[in-house]
Amino acid sequence: MSILVIGTLAYDSIETPFGKAENALGGSANYIALAASYLSQNIGVVSIIGDDYEESDLQLLHDRNIDTTGVEKREGGKTFRWSGRYHHDLNTRDTLDTQLNVLLEFDPKVPAQMNDVRFVCLGNLDPAIQLSVLDQVENPLFTICDTMNFWIESTPEKLREALGRVDCLIINDSEARELADDPSLIRAARKIRAMGPQTLIIKKGEHGALLFVEDEVFSAPAWPLEEVFDPTGAGDTFAGGFVGYLAKHGEVTPKTLRSAVVYGSALASFCVEEFSVKALLNLSQEQITERVQAFRNLSHFELDEEPVRNAIA
Amino acid sequence: MSILVIGTLAYDSIETPFGKAENALGGSANYIALAASYLSQNIGVVSIIGDDYEESDLQLLHDRNIDTTGVEKREGGKTFRWSGRYHHDLNTRDTLDTQLNVLLEFDPKVPAQMNDVRFVCLGNLDPAIQLSVLDQVENPLFTICDTMNFWIESTPEKLREALGRVDCLIINDSEARELADDPSLIRAARKIRAMGPQTLIIKKGEHGALLFVEDEVFSAPAWPLEEVFDPTGAGDTFAGGFVGYLAKHGEVTPKTLRSAVVYGSALASFCVEEFSVKALLNLSQEQITERVQAFRNLSHFELDEEPVRNAIA
Repeated sequence: MSILVIGTLAYDSIETPFGKAENALGGSANYIALAASYLSQNIGVVSIIGDDYEESDLQLLHDRNIDTTGVEKREGGKTFRWSGRYHHDLNTRDTLDTQLNVLLEFDPKVPAQMNDVRFVCLGNLDPAIQLSVLDQVENPLFTICDTMNFWIESTPEKLREALGRVDCLIINDSEARELADDPSLIRAARKIRAMGPQTLIIKKGEHGALLFVEDEVFSAPAWPLEEVFDPTGAGDTFAGGFVGYLAKHGEVTPKTLRSAVVYGSALASFCVEEFSVKALLNLSQEQITERVQAFRNLSHFELDEEPVRNAIA
Repeated sequence: MSILVIGTLAYDSIETPFGKAENALGGSANYIALAASYLSQNIGVVSIIGDDYEESDLQLLHDRNIDTTGVEKREGGKTFRWSGRYHHDLNTRDTLDTQLNVLLEFDPKVPAQMNDVRFVCLGNLDPAIQLSVLDQVENPLFTICDTMNFWIESTPEKLREALGRVDCLIINDSEARELADDPSLIRAARKIRAMGPQTLIIKKGEHGALLFVEDEVFSAPAWPLEEVFDPTGAGDTFAGGFVGYLAKHGEVTPKTLRSAVVYGSALASFCVEEFSVKALLNLSQEQITERVQAFRNLSHFELDEEPVRNAIA
């Protein structure tokens, strides 16, 4: 197994200024695994669903060769459901309803054939669940963790324990400031890396993302969209593209990490153009190649070959 | 004359979380001209001062070969003074006091030998003053304009008139949203360019800057500082580095504009490391070259040479 994805399989009801979607397919594991499947093979999902989860929705993962052996179907249980409304600027949202349902009983079991997985992507979940998965994998090359303000506030000790055991944290800017209790993002990054994850990615929405690795900082641009149709899943899609690129290359270096951030950003830029996982079902290789090339054009500049001339020298 | 700078020569009293400076040298024309002088020659300033303006402060411009023939000294008048306090995050500030003084009578006279100037940089001033300067120059290659929320709100018609006559507007993100009355920065950019300036730069503080030119968008990273010591003048320094680079190269193309944004960002990154104009008095060519190289490292990434492999193809 190349990539193990732990996260939710869910149904979301979403309102944006552009429309509504009721009971649309969602959940971090869907977004992560689908996005990763465009870059890498041998992807497995560990999650939990109720018996209301549509077989055709699991089939979407199978269609992309994603292994769902690790998805537990709880008979008589109901799938996790989330409902939210995005504000006009789409940067903030209100949660209208959260029905944890089967998530309350989620005790992840990593199938035996996945124990030797190389890349582990821990979607945003209770840190205790993330730790349980880390206990079940043998010697992964690279472990990636997502989290959110809810866990920063409600289970800070468990979160610290998880952070102490992962290689990489992916977090958004406001959460980074909250976790480090520091308004300076750059100083917050230093403090968070001191908690464990040597590789840190801070997502800044419409302002792109920052990667901190070794003594380097990499600033990735955001895709300049006039309209974000539905931001749901953008962060998970980023994580999926990121881990997918790393797994494809098989090695984790500052160089591959930079490119992985760009591929994650590119996949996420597709995700927000449609409701739910729709944009992640039929991407072509050409579309992805064109988009990452466009990211390059977005940030490319040339330096003078001659040194700067001191005008008064 | 290569660059004509119109702006203020001022004394600022500043409080930041790191300290205080009383009656420190400031004003947009000082920052713009000093920054530009590291990249280009033949720079002239048009401004107004009172008889309280220190000769040694004018000498700082002369030391960098900047022509102050266009600086009017109003006998019996007092120099423009501004006093402000920055909040803890340094992104917001309160103006404590503004004494316009001689600025109230500023009727700019462009000296005859500067009429044929190639690059005009209109610092943040009453749009009527900016228009008066545009009336006095003959056929500049490229005109750049800065503005702020005060003029957007108090003199919208004059501002629109000025925007209709400049090639490039430099503005910060909140002001761009206000000017275009649109929360989407990318859509706001389109609306502002329709008002006149075909080249638009939106400064996003700690998130870098966006350049819109022809059908291209360029996203420049911000320098990852843990501490901003004093943000005063950062925007003007950016404009100075930007116009200085363009004037040095003598032509305005998407390629030189991208590099100019990076040089502007690099100069601004020095500015915020010290109070007042201090950081702009003794930069070396090596420091600037190193900093722009570091900007390159900040945003550089490599793409795969082979196309993305569709994992299930």
